Amino acid sequence: MAAGVERWGVFELEFVGPGGGNPFIEVELSATFSQANRAVEVAGFYDGEGRYRVRFMPDAEGVWRYRTRSNRSELDGKTGEFVCVGPSPGNHGPVHVENRFHFAYADGTPYRQLGTTCYAWIHQGDALEEQTLATLARAPFNKLRMCVFPKDYDFNHNDPELYPYVAKTPPAGTRYAWDFTRFDPAFWRHLEKRVQQLGALGIEADIIVFHPYDRWGFSSMPREADDLYMKYLIARLSAYRNVWWSMANEFDIMRSKTMADWDHFFRTFQTFDPYGHLRSVHNCVQFYDHSRPWVSHCSVQSSDLHRVPEWRAAYGKPVVVDECCYEGNICHAWGNITAQELVRRFWRGTVGGGYVGHGETYADPQDLLWWSKGGRLRGESPARLAFLKKILDEVPLAGLEPCHGVVTTGGEGLARCGDEYFLGYFGVHQPSSIRLALPPGRRYTIEAIDTWNMNVETVSRGAAGALEVGFPGRPYMAVRIRAEA
Amino acid sequence: MAAGVERWGVFELEFVGPGGGNPFIEVELSATFSQANRAVEVAGFYDGEGRYRVRFMPDAEGVWRYRTRSNRSELDGKTGEFVCVGPSPGNHGPVHVENRFHFAYADGTPYRQLGTTCYAWIHQGDALEEQTLATLARAPFNKLRMCVFPKDYDFNHNDPELYPYVAKTPPAGTRYAWDFTRFDPAFWRHLEKRVQQLGALGIEADIIVFHPYDRWGFSSMPREADDLYMKYLIARLSAYRNVWWSMANEFDIMRSKTMADWDHFFRTFQTFDPYGHLRSVHNCVQFYDHSRPWVSHCSVQSSDLHRVPEWRAAYGKPVVVDECCYEGNICHAWGNITAQELVRRFWRGTVGGGYVGHGETYADPQDLLWWSKGGRLRGESPARLAFLKKILDEVPLAGLEPCHGVVTTGGEGLARCGDEYFLGYFGVHQPSSIRLALPPGRRYTIEAIDTWNMNVETVSRGAAGALEVGFPGRPYMAVRIRAEA
Repeated sequence: MAAGVERWGVFELEFVGPGGGNPFIEVELSATFSQANRAVEVAGFYDGEGRYRVRFMPDAEGVWRYRTRSNRSELDGKTGEFVCVGPSPGNHGPVHVENRFHFAYADGTPYRQLGTTCYAWIHQGDALEEQTLATLARAPFNKLRMCVFPKDYDFNHNDPELYPYVAKTPPAGTRYAWDFTRFDPAFWRHLEKRVQQLGALGIEADIIVFHPYDRWGFSSMPREADDLYMKYLIARLSAYRNVWWSMANEFDIMRSKTMADWDHFFRTFQTFDPYGHLRSVHNCVQFYDHSRPWVSHCSVQSSDLHRVPEWRAAYGKPVVVDECCYEGNICHAWGNITAQELVRRFWRGTVGGGYVGHGETYADPQDLLWWSKGGRLRGESPARLAFLKKILDEVPLAGLEPCHGVVTTGGEGLARCGDEYFLGYFGVHQPSSIRLALPPGRRYTIEAIDTWNMNVETVSRGAAGALEVGFPGRPYMAVRIRAEA
Repeated sequence: MAAGVERWGVFELEFVGPGGGNPFIEVELSATFSQANRAVEVAGFYDGEGRYRVRFMPDAEGVWRYRTRSNRSELDGKTGEFVCVGPSPGNHGPVHVENRFHFAYADGTPYRQLGTTCYAWIHQGDALEEQTLATLARAPFNKLRMCVFPKDYDFNHNDPELYPYVAKTPPAGTRYAWDFTRFDPAFWRHLEKRVQQLGALGIEADIIVFHPYDRWGFSSMPREADDLYMKYLIARLSAYRNVWWSMANEFDIMRSKTMADWDHFFRTFQTFDPYGHLRSVHNCVQFYDHSRPWVSHCSVQSSDLHRVPEWRAAYGKPVVVDECCYEGNICHAWGNITAQELVRRFWRGTVGGGYVGHGETYADPQDLLWWSKGGRLRGESPARLAFLKKILDEVPLAGLEPCHGVVTTGGEGLARCGDEYFLGYFGVHQPSSIRLALPPGRRYTIEAIDTWNMNVETVSRGAAGALEVGFPGRPYMAVRIRAEA
């Protein structure tokens, strides 16, 4: 019996098989993993130099058996078994949708999304990539949006060291040509390593499958190449529990793809990812129809955080506003809002019952912008987002639902969790007193949360019914109202 | 010949007539003022103690003749003439709509609306009212929203010294009763004096005809009383050049009035005001249809200043956002935004091609809140609005039109005046450089305007075409781009 693997860990089979021809398209390999009456079919992949791998994430403890299938006899009919043991501390399993508008890990621990964005961080070389990981280790973020393909856009025109495909000799007058049927395993091993490292830091990897910022031709491959790419990506990465699938960044400005293409991409992941990792797609202006059955949650670009309740109602799914402008000072409006405004947008989205994402874009003499390359964070928002995360971690299990009333003073939004818990946000409002109409039959503790200066002050205990209580009269305050035992 | 009166000044006739019975409803008096082939009919009014007056605002210099008409012989057929001379310095005449979306005084001087609000300032007694006037003399505002009727609402429950009507003995169990056919001239002389004093300070009086915040019964008078009231108001006040008519504050929450009532009120002013003073109506939530022909401009309550271009397009008239929340710290969301946010809203409205209004609501141990009672201003926005007014006074004659492009960096809005002048606002964006695509064939001077710290810095001269220029990288900045000679 093979060595044990922990629940939601990666069990990997390695085989030696044919190295000639083009194994990426000529050799089929899969394995069925079974336990009691369950069977999970998992695709394998070619990893170069005659080596084949099958990766599997067991979701239940106990003995699992496997049998391979292949069109090559040396890879076909291999059998074996392994024991899945309990998860190690910090391993809560993959994230799924919980309570319709929220997320939880597989073990039931709530997952309160607090994302950031480093689109091209894996294309920057080890020194910078390791600095990014060190920064993330000290940062509050539990999700990272990142591209598979390299990026060509302002502040990020450098070529990566590794490419996902083997290069061909470019035709005269062109700079790049690729064999879209031959992956470069070195690239993919690097990608996997980075995804695993994020996992070790407790960070979900929101893998962006396609994106428009491209000078290499990866955004306009033929359908067969797209399909081969997605299946290879799924075979290599889906056994990592911290993977999410984002069909694209700004899908609506990718001219070479149609809406039918996006539906097809979603369905490809729905069909071939055996674990059902979270799936979404990120817009520039026009939203994808997030109500479609293959979408697990909304991945929104918008500055209108007050619309989160409307999107929840429209799509009936968790709303993650992955992009609402970034803290920074560059020449693009989407990348130069103040830290105060970014933190305000996080809070507005939070009390709307949604989740928000961070990015940082300070102009840099070496073009080291966090949002694209990673590196160091220099802004003032991450500390405030760490503070928000603490507040979120104290929200009752069921999560926040947007509501009205109760804090009759108004403000920039109010959320509740039953009659136990209310969280209101005042933003640019600075009341020196607030009016409340508390649910009958209970007493409440009222706290003033200074979201910018990061402190919590109790303003009333034993509060009940309709009342007016003094409040600090500063901007960027929230009120937390918790039922007393 | 009577003594001369200046153009757009007030010429007043006084007659002695019947004092018995009820002259307010039994005596009809008007006068026709004529010059060359023009004749203007003007209603007179009873001013108590047997005195009748007719007020007229001549709009052309030279000799004017008049003849009265009355159902009482002692007031009928009185004739005379007077000379209208040129206006004194500072008298630019009444304000009208100019260039579709803007305003100008009758002499052609642009009027860039920068309003404030003191709803019940004339109901506070002389000491506070004189303090209000002293404050206004030092403040930047050129329009004031004010109610005729007293106000009953949070922070303003005090009874006024004077009422528009003569009181009757209240029925048992009620506190107030009025004879809606008998005005108290003392109230009206007081109102007039305050309107004149505003005029002397160069401030337009935006007279709110009806409003819902009432414990006396003035918001639910019968139609005949409404009509008598409006005609009396018009007869007494319309000769003052600085009068605007606002049918109501928050018309849509006045349950006793229907939409047909509002149409009727507008048409009453349209019919009986011989000068065609500006007319609008202010909403709480639901807009009146400002496209109706008797509406001169939009008087909006909204925090969505980015929608100003949309309202301009929808109604084809000037947009004045009279209420977009007030600087303050009270327990109501509409009255507790920061000075920074209020100034930001002014700038957003301005670069949307509209005009914005101020109010101040700081909690006070004696409930002296500027927005209701006047008194002193203590906020940080007025100084910044004075600075904005200086910028507005330097806008070319035709006024600002919202537009896109040119400042390709984006931000919170951009306006232009032809190819001569552009004004962009960045608000919570803080670009350290901005990208421009300037119209061909000219050179421009680029200035960075710090709307909060109130300074202007030239960042480029002789700029042309597409370029990127360094910018201060602070929030609350604007860019002004002016064609060089």
